[in-house]
Amino acid sequence: MPSEWLCRALIASALVFATTAPVLAATDDGKVTDFLLSNGMEVVVVPDHRAPIVTHMVWYKIGSADEPIGKSGIAHFFEHLMFKATANHAAGELNRAVAEIGGSHNAFTSYDYTAFYQRVAPSALEQMMSFEADRMRNLILADDVIKTERDVILEERRWRIETNPQAVLDEEADATLWQNHPYRIPVIGWMQEMEQLNRTDAVAFYNKHYSPNNAVLVVAGDVEPKTVKALAEKTYGKLPRGPELLPRVRPVEPEQNTQRQVTLTDARVSVPSFSTHWVVPSYRTAEHGEAEALELLAEILGGGTRSRLYQQLVVKQGIATDASAWFQGDRLDDTQFTVHGSLRGGAMLRDLEAAVDAEVANIATDGVTSEELDQAKDRYVRTVIFAQDEQDYLANMYGSTLATGGSVKDVEEWPDRIRKVTPDQVKAVAARYLVSDHSTTGYLLPKTEN
Amino acid sequence: MPSEWLCRALIASALVFATTAPVLAATDDGKVTDFLLSNGMEVVVVPDHRAPIVTHMVWYKIGSADEPIGKSGIAHFFEHLMFKATANHAAGELNRAVAEIGGSHNAFTSYDYTAFYQRVAPSALEQMMSFEADRMRNLILADDVIKTERDVILEERRWRIETNPQAVLDEEADATLWQNHPYRIPVIGWMQEMEQLNRTDAVAFYNKHYSPNNAVLVVAGDVEPKTVKALAEKTYGKLPRGPELLPRVRPVEPEQNTQRQVTLTDARVSVPSFSTHWVVPSYRTAEHGEAEALELLAEILGGGTRSRLYQQLVVKQGIATDASAWFQGDRLDDTQFTVHGSLRGGAMLRDLEAAVDAEVANIATDGVTSEELDQAKDRYVRTVIFAQDEQDYLANMYGSTLATGGSVKDVEEWPDRIRKVTPDQVKAVAARYLVSDHSTTGYLLPKTEN
Repeated sequence: MPSEWLCRALIASALVFATTAPVLAATDDGKVTDFLLSNGMEVVVVPDHRAPIVTHMVWYKIGSADEPIGKSGIAHFFEHLMFKATANHAAGELNRAVAEIGGSHNAFTSYDYTAFYQRVAPSALEQMMSFEADRMRNLILADDVIKTERDVILEERRWRIETNPQAVLDEEADATLWQNHPYRIPVIGWMQEMEQLNRTDAVAFYNKHYSPNNAVLVVAGDVEPKTVKALAEKTYGKLPRGPELLPRVRPVEPEQNTQRQVTLTDARVSVPSFSTHWVVPSYRTAEHGEAEALELLAEILGGGTRSRLYQQLVVKQGIATDASAWFQGDRLDDTQFTVHGSLRGGAMLRDLEAAVDAEVANIATDGVTSEELDQAKDRYVRTVIFAQDEQDYLANMYGSTLATGGSVKDVEEWPDRIRKVTPDQVKAVAARYLVSDHSTTGYLLPKTEN
Repeated sequence: MPSEWLCRALIASALVFATTAPVLAATDDGKVTDFLLSNGMEVVVVPDHRAPIVTHMVWYKIGSADEPIGKSGIAHFFEHLMFKATANHAAGELNRAVAEIGGSHNAFTSYDYTAFYQRVAPSALEQMMSFEADRMRNLILADDVIKTERDVILEERRWRIETNPQAVLDEEADATLWQNHPYRIPVIGWMQEMEQLNRTDAVAFYNKHYSPNNAVLVVAGDVEPKTVKALAEKTYGKLPRGPELLPRVRPVEPEQNTQRQVTLTDARVSVPSFSTHWVVPSYRTAEHGEAEALELLAEILGGGTRSRLYQQLVVKQGIATDASAWFQGDRLDDTQFTVHGSLRGGAMLRDLEAAVDAEVANIATDGVTSEELDQAKDRYVRTVIFAQDEQDYLANMYGSTLATGGSVKDVEEWPDRIRKVTPDQVKAVAARYLVSDHSTTGYLLPKTEN
């Protein structure tokens, strides 16, 4: 398997580590640079000279939420197809080249983007760019390749989803939370539609979306911006501009008026658990600092063992083995906020759920303290310190932001925007968005429970 | 308001009365005739000489489930726009012409079709055909017309849906039952998408779908087939064939693995109630008589006061004020089966729901008796006798069947297929489809209840 499907946890993590940027800007000798190639390709260079390593990523502004109707899974299909033969390279050549120089590589697909990356020595950067530029336009989409790789993604769906009750539940809970927006459709695709994906679909999708003017190049590591620029012009710069793409306007979710519940009862489940989701604005769609407030609300409510949910339910009441909350801020359109609880043996799920609801209601009604908010902001900084060695995260942060309509400036200013959030703002977003009557909850239950 | 939006009850009723055909065939002097005009328009003539009245209907094979993504409501929008000015007639002329001769007229939109009809004296048939043929191709879709009628449909949505808690709940329950198929989208449209409908959308939709080769003409009443044919050729026959349409292939619903619940709590609700829905095959998608078995299952389980649900819950246990079941068989794709219960004061909703579940499980486990099945079949016949004077139903039955891919033969053979259903088949469809773990239930609750 040459590739990896980006799970929601990884998507969420991209922004968790977003504060690495200014920390690095202060300690590193380089400044983040961005520019456009003449064919429209965006380039971002993030200097990081602590080790002779470079992370080379190409982000395409195409994800599962941009798929044609009835063609679910085709964005992720390309995460596989891109590793097959091109007009200039046999299938597997890129993998071998990376392996020979002791590098690593991978790819991932989300609702809003598809990305490919290699982590190699700086001397191999030109070779990587050459491989990536080649497969951006010269992929051979033959019938036999389509059929073989389609079997691979179908098998991937079987073992990632069908054999995993939590994944099956998550799919149907997502499709219950989102009733009109394409975020309701799983990134990997619905089985019955994946089975029908064919060469005609693939060629149309590739020609429409795989082009320099729909891509963002991110190079992070031990390299100078002018070197990256020269190499990018020599490789990607030779590709012709692709067709102009329409704005990424997707169907808008109607206002939710109901409380929704989705229950999966399965013999493979041993610990009952639940997750409650709400539609909330993302960094891209929010106004007046609401996304930053939601980020800190998730941190205070359920970001680790110091959080209110963990302290109250796991430590004090002892009715949960785990309790957490998260905000998936890096989406192109409105996104979701989630709270989760896993039951401790002997406790009742309804008590756990009521206790979680009470913690949420508590913030919506009484807010958070300044001290608590400052601590949450500090926890971010600590997380960042631990993450500084993760060059991948730096690249991920710029790539995911630019691929969802943001700018380098947005990334750089983000920590300041986080610091400016007030207790009243946190209270306000909890009260406005985390309304029980307009929530969607998924329950995962053992078969024996009635 | 010149038009009427077809509610689900009316859709369902079309098939309830489908057995009128053979009864009439036996007692009437005419045989149902069907033929094609040279431009591809299908014509069905249903002679009915008991009164000097004719029902003239044009069914377009276009419904809300065929709408472009993000353009919900546009099929129903045309139910309004079709009454505006054409190149040959001012807005309102058709209405006046019908009123002057003491006729009636209307229009309706469903997931799979849009239909327009007049009920007039036979002497006015040619005039009606002339009006319908004219507006099939000569509608003037000016900006001011679009804006004015868009305000009308927005207002229609406000009073039909937003002011009615049951309608709000039904919309979100439908969108929870259907997670991939466009039946999840309300026929009237999502407000935020209706607000954006414009002239460009309307012109594209009209030119694509309003053409003789995408329409079915149904004439039922006191008229001879040869007369209808001559008039149809003189009016509709002069229209050019429109663009060829692709097969109506919609996204397929994935298998449901979860139990889903949608709750609306509203101060305007006085009686708690619930409806449980399952995805089941329609007449068009079913095999081996399953649709006919589902039809009789609905009749036995909840078709009127003799049904099991009514007898058990309303009469014997006294915990419900109403209990019923229905099957919406006339859809192009897989459809839904529903059971419903309204609570009697003093009883508990969970007891009512458990009692309904028990009746469903009872049939799935122990089946139905031959006597009970025969009675259900007989009840259909009685319904038919009472409905014989309803010429509209005859026309509806042929129109809805032909607009969803069926034939005159399908309509004519349907009663025989109903008669052949065995008790084992009824038990089998209950066991196969009405599975509690894979159901979707909507709850309508008063605000005061916790």
